[in-house]
Amino acid sequence: MQNANRQIRLIARPDGLAGLEHFDEATEPVRQPNTGEVLVETLLLSIDPAMRVWMNEDPGYVPPIQLGSVMRAGGIARVVESRIDGLAPGDLVQGRLGWQTHPTLSGEGLHKLDLTMGDAEAWIGPLGTSALTAYFGMTAVANVKAGDTVLVSGAAGAVGQIAAQVGTLNHCRVIGIAGGAEKCAMLRDSLRLDAAIDYKAATDLSTEIKQAAPNGVDVYFDNVGGPTLDAALGNMAALGRIAICGRISQTAAAELYGVKNMGLAIGKRLRVQGFIVSDYNARYGEARAWLAGELKAGRLQQRLHILDGLEHAPSGLRMLFEGGNTGKLAIRVAT
Amino acid sequence: MQNANRQIRLIARPDGLAGLEHFDEATEPVRQPNTGEVLVETLLLSIDPAMRVWMNEDPGYVPPIQLGSVMRAGGIARVVESRIDGLAPGDLVQGRLGWQTHPTLSGEGLHKLDLTMGDAEAWIGPLGTSALTAYFGMTAVANVKAGDTVLVSGAAGAVGQIAAQVGTLNHCRVIGIAGGAEKCAMLRDSLRLDAAIDYKAATDLSTEIKQAAPNGVDVYFDNVGGPTLDAALGNMAALGRIAICGRISQTAAAELYGVKNMGLAIGKRLRVQGFIVSDYNARYGEARAWLAGELKAGRLQQRLHILDGLEHAPSGLRMLFEGGNTGKLAIRVAT
Repeated sequence: MQNANRQIRLIARPDGLAGLEHFDEATEPVRQPNTGEVLVETLLLSIDPAMRVWMNEDPGYVPPIQLGSVMRAGGIARVVESRIDGLAPGDLVQGRLGWQTHPTLSGEGLHKLDLTMGDAEAWIGPLGTSALTAYFGMTAVANVKAGDTVLVSGAAGAVGQIAAQVGTLNHCRVIGIAGGAEKCAMLRDSLRLDAAIDYKAATDLSTEIKQAAPNGVDVYFDNVGGPTLDAALGNMAALGRIAICGRISQTAAAELYGVKNMGLAIGKRLRVQGFIVSDYNARYGEARAWLAGELKAGRLQQRLHILDGLEHAPSGLRMLFEGGNTGKLAIRVAT
Repeated sequence: MQNANRQIRLIARPDGLAGLEHFDEATEPVRQPNTGEVLVETLLLSIDPAMRVWMNEDPGYVPPIQLGSVMRAGGIARVVESRIDGLAPGDLVQGRLGWQTHPTLSGEGLHKLDLTMGDAEAWIGPLGTSALTAYFGMTAVANVKAGDTVLVSGAAGAVGQIAAQVGTLNHCRVIGIAGGAEKCAMLRDSLRLDAAIDYKAATDLSTEIKQAAPNGVDVYFDNVGGPTLDAALGNMAALGRIAICGRISQTAAAELYGVKNMGLAIGKRLRVQGFIVSDYNARYGEARAWLAGELKAGRLQQRLHILDGLEHAPSGLRMLFEGGNTGKLAIRVAT
């Protein structure tokens, strides 16, 4: 049995993007679990935009990560030793593991995976937190309904891919925005969206949205903020809804972009609503049942973009902000 | 009986604020009503920010006013001759009269006033469209509830005064923003708001909001848009609601202000919603019953700012954008 716990710790707070210089590797002995604790072996770590925000001194709705401590991250692990009732060696769990190979954790926030719904990769992907985020943003926040024209930014990303498919599976016309021809081809050919807009190639994003949605956008699922939000606002249909899920274009921006089209919300009676997935905690079961059903039926897919080895976690986080991933980005720590 | 109908017509579309140069006076003979029409004498005309938008070539959710035709306006009139069942000479009606002394109108959109609820001045003011706008913005859009901290911009204006009092009457802590010491004193002393912020005297509006609402703003009723919206966004409490009713700071602005704080909507789970009062048409009765009840009980007040004479309508419209009025601005055409 492994008795070293490899860790990556936060040692400095970035101003802009996170880089290798903000992290340090360390190894400490594996700690045996006390009563109410479990020792696990990390299998997969999720890489999410929110992690960059957690690195700030004041991340807002969660406490900051203390300098010198393990970088916070969610993921999937296998139980090695358990002193928690209901968890046994070999069980797979989801929880806040951190960037480390062999954490010893309290049971708080640990969730035993139902492997009849999907395997570890499904639980990091289409049954994972980013999929839940997409589900609740589209349904509870944006009230998507059949026949809506739906626009999704960051559509090739972890949340965006699922959001787009919640749209198509609800009989909406779905337009995805992504960066690069390859991602756009994937959205059209693999996810079968009605249209895909390559924002990097667009001379005027607003014009391209208007061409793809001549009658206006009923639901905009926003993962990026900034000028894309402005272009979407300018193309909303009356009574349109905007779910603000993320703002990856602004997270590490030196200066915030000013949104000019908010005034259009009056005449068009738009509803613009920010959300975080944990507010829907009590309804995760409902969402997972739907996602697992669509997954089993072969109607829902999610590209995973997996980097092998804990040491790639810092560069993975940076990749997310540089648009290098297609689909859900995760680090495989063990199999 | 008068047989001349004095009119003020729109003859040019402004780029910025409306001025005398965009209007022309004319007189035409009074036209006797046909079946289904009514000849009325205009008593009071409402002056509203939306009227500036109606002057544009593309006002958005309503048709533009054709150049050369009478300026569109709502108001209160007395029936002179009626060929509509249910309307008799002497009845008071509310409707889209236009800037003219003796219009002949179809029954469409005409509403006979119940004078047991209030007189003509009450119907232009606390029972009128701007009061309905405030009522639905605070209740149906912002879901105001007892204990909320409420912030209202343009609080000394027609809609703002009522919105603020819908707050106080629902047991909220209410902070008003207005321009000038006199308006702020009126908000505190006469409307009994908990705090008033003079945005013209403020060195930093956001700091002043923070001082007045240290635990954050639950409901922001926005009449002005622009940097005030940004300052409010920066001070919202978690799960806060913003009702976007108007954006008077932007209506005639040469360049639109860019709102930088929209990203805060995510972590704070804010809902920002634009609305127009006519969407709540089916519920006007409910709103008027509540407003009339509070008015009779002496708990609701509305300052009227009345200019005497049709010829003051153009300068009245300009006054609105320059903040010259305190309370609901109207033109008295006859008594």
